[in-house]
Amino acid sequence: MTSAPPSGRQDTDRPQELPLVGTPPQAVHGAQETEFFLPELPRLLPSAYHPNAVEIEVRSNAWVCRHLQSCFSDEQALMSYLRQRAGLYGPAVSPLADEQRAGDIADFYQYVTVMDDAIAGAATDEQQARTALARITDGFGTDTDDTSPLIRAGADLWRRITPGLSPAQVGRFKESLASSLGGYADEVPHRHAGHILGLDDYLALRVFRFGWPFVALMTEYGAGIDMTGLHPTPAFEAANGHAVRQMILVNDLLSWRKEHARADTMNAVAVLQHTRGLGLQDAVDALCHLIEDEGRAYLAARDLILGGSLGTRPDVAAYFDAVDHLIGGTQAYHYLTPRYFGDGYAPDGSTSGWLSLTEPLARLRPHPTDPARAVR
Amino acid sequence: MTSAPPSGRQDTDRPQELPLVGTPPQAVHGAQETEFFLPELPRLLPSAYHPNAVEIEVRSNAWVCRHLQSCFSDEQALMSYLRQRAGLYGPAVSPLADEQRAGDIADFYQYVTVMDDAIAGAATDEQQARTALARITDGFGTDTDDTSPLIRAGADLWRRITPGLSPAQVGRFKESLASSLGGYADEVPHRHAGHILGLDDYLALRVFRFGWPFVALMTEYGAGIDMTGLHPTPAFEAANGHAVRQMILVNDLLSWRKEHARADTMNAVAVLQHTRGLGLQDAVDALCHLIEDEGRAYLAARDLILGGSLGTRPDVAAYFDAVDHLIGGTQAYHYLTPRYFGDGYAPDGSTSGWLSLTEPLARLRPHPTDPARAVR
Repeated sequence: MTSAPPSGRQDTDRPQELPLVGTPPQAVHGAQETEFFLPELPRLLPSAYHPNAVEIEVRSNAWVCRHLQSCFSDEQALMSYLRQRAGLYGPAVSPLADEQRAGDIADFYQYVTVMDDAIAGAATDEQQARTALARITDGFGTDTDDTSPLIRAGADLWRRITPGLSPAQVGRFKESLASSLGGYADEVPHRHAGHILGLDDYLALRVFRFGWPFVALMTEYGAGIDMTGLHPTPAFEAANGHAVRQMILVNDLLSWRKEHARADTMNAVAVLQHTRGLGLQDAVDALCHLIEDEGRAYLAARDLILGGSLGTRPDVAAYFDAVDHLIGGTQAYHYLTPRYFGDGYAPDGSTSGWLSLTEPLARLRPHPTDPARAVR
Repeated sequence: MTSAPPSGRQDTDRPQELPLVGTPPQAVHGAQETEFFLPELPRLLPSAYHPNAVEIEVRSNAWVCRHLQSCFSDEQALMSYLRQRAGLYGPAVSPLADEQRAGDIADFYQYVTVMDDAIAGAATDEQQARTALARITDGFGTDTDDTSPLIRAGADLWRRITPGLSPAQVGRFKESLASSLGGYADEVPHRHAGHILGLDDYLALRVFRFGWPFVALMTEYGAGIDMTGLHPTPAFEAANGHAVRQMILVNDLLSWRKEHARADTMNAVAVLQHTRGLGLQDAVDALCHLIEDEGRAYLAARDLILGGSLGTRPDVAAYFDAVDHLIGGTQAYHYLTPRYFGDGYAPDGSTSGWLSLTEPLARLRPHPTDPARAVR
């Protein structure tokens, strides 16, 4: 990585993953580090917001107020959610889609974000979580008269999005929500017990809660294409796998401040600290290298496909153009949203710097708050 | 106006403006109204954000942090300012400009907003205000080594913008800042004494503090044209006059909650309450009619020019295309910025509803907080 932090430390040592264990990372490393230096991440892929991003975000906020208001405890909670600007994630990852589809995608991502928050706040029991989530996925798209706002909002999305999908994609749409929510339920016992998985096991599980099945589908929907037949091929599995892991690792890195605050063990920072016996900064540096590795591996896997017989197909080219922007847009969005740096955060253009884990409202700063760390 | 509030009250009675008087509006109308119904304003003109609006806002925030940080009392004040999203005003009013010019315009509007806030917080003495403002306008564009951040930031803008201006426009650039800041100083004694002007006098003064000279110039800069020779013609004066008055009145309406809180008399709501003896809601309704009148008068004046001999000139057509978007974008931006509805406001898509003057964080709501007013 050209933009390694000043110490120039390298993470060449990559030990085997440890089996499932039950000790949270704080217990491993004596004095707790309360800030870290976020290196400049490589920008291997293009990022751009949709040309109508501002309008789409506002309209998507209106959709949340209309359909999902009752998912929030009160108006303050709703406004706090809107301040996170989740309505801009769709425009960040679908800059090439037409405005209507980009708006549908924005609403869909708000929908799963609201659901994610609702589950995170409620589910501590795996069976309880599975029952609640099964009700949502069973009703998804079919039950417009249900009393649950999540089910009614899901029906609205279904009505708008399915006409733009092939029959195979419609089937994937329903399954995608079930697999993502099932992935959430799978994480509950680990999270509840403070279990820390090995990196490979962790990532294999995390792919589902990240929602890759619906992320892939929304990417196709935005591009107006159907990759159903190609996803199971080894070449696509490789490219998709590197893409989703890059995005998960970026999310884990930039959301660590928030997830650390709730002692969440389902995050690559915790996984690396524990499985490699690293301190916070070393785990962050190792994670940055992994992010670069996954990004470069995605590029290689993508180029292999585009250089082969499939490379002449316009739908395949459009798919990877869209995935490029999905990866680049996801990374850019993480520097913009107040979701991870604290309510009240406003993007100041910083993409590198010292990040405090304890300040209520964090920023990326040129200097650490603890001067003793400035030697780094 | 097709979207008149439910009562259907009409504001056909337009008495003569009163001469300068010294009684603030609260004293005129017994029980003070603490909320009003904001009708849907007509959308006579197109609005669109620049296709790179999100990126431009973030880069412009970075520019503020780099150049103007010391204008804020502390980091909290800076972050509160950034949360107002003033960096999006440029993209709101220059959607047709190329990305670099739209970014220059965004930075320029942040510059004058920061200056406006600094002056509003400091100037209670007209002579003191004139001295401080003269220093800024004298140094504007020339003094890169000055210790004042406002002067150094001004030099940065000058360096970037003047290469895209004609010599005549360069002269106007410097004068525009002086006339706007002079307009601010002119308002100081009225504001300080709680004076309320007649509507025509008020608007004549307000045009300068609104910054019409630099707004017109930035509009030309965004379009890459020079209207210097045409602005003094009666036809352009008419079109420009209606355009700026429409924008001032929209700003006065949407900012009344904030300006009322500091008992600001330099606002059309206060002017209408006082000069026409109206209560708050009637003044708001009258103001909405004025906004529509000015918008329609702009359209007529513009069409007169475009239908005449100048209408074949591409630069004239480009100018009015840009002014159309300036008016439409200014109106749209007012529903988005937290500047007027309170720190923490997030746009929820509402453009009409009940607005409280007393809630720390306001929203446009479907019902008044005081049920007794629901009969309206």
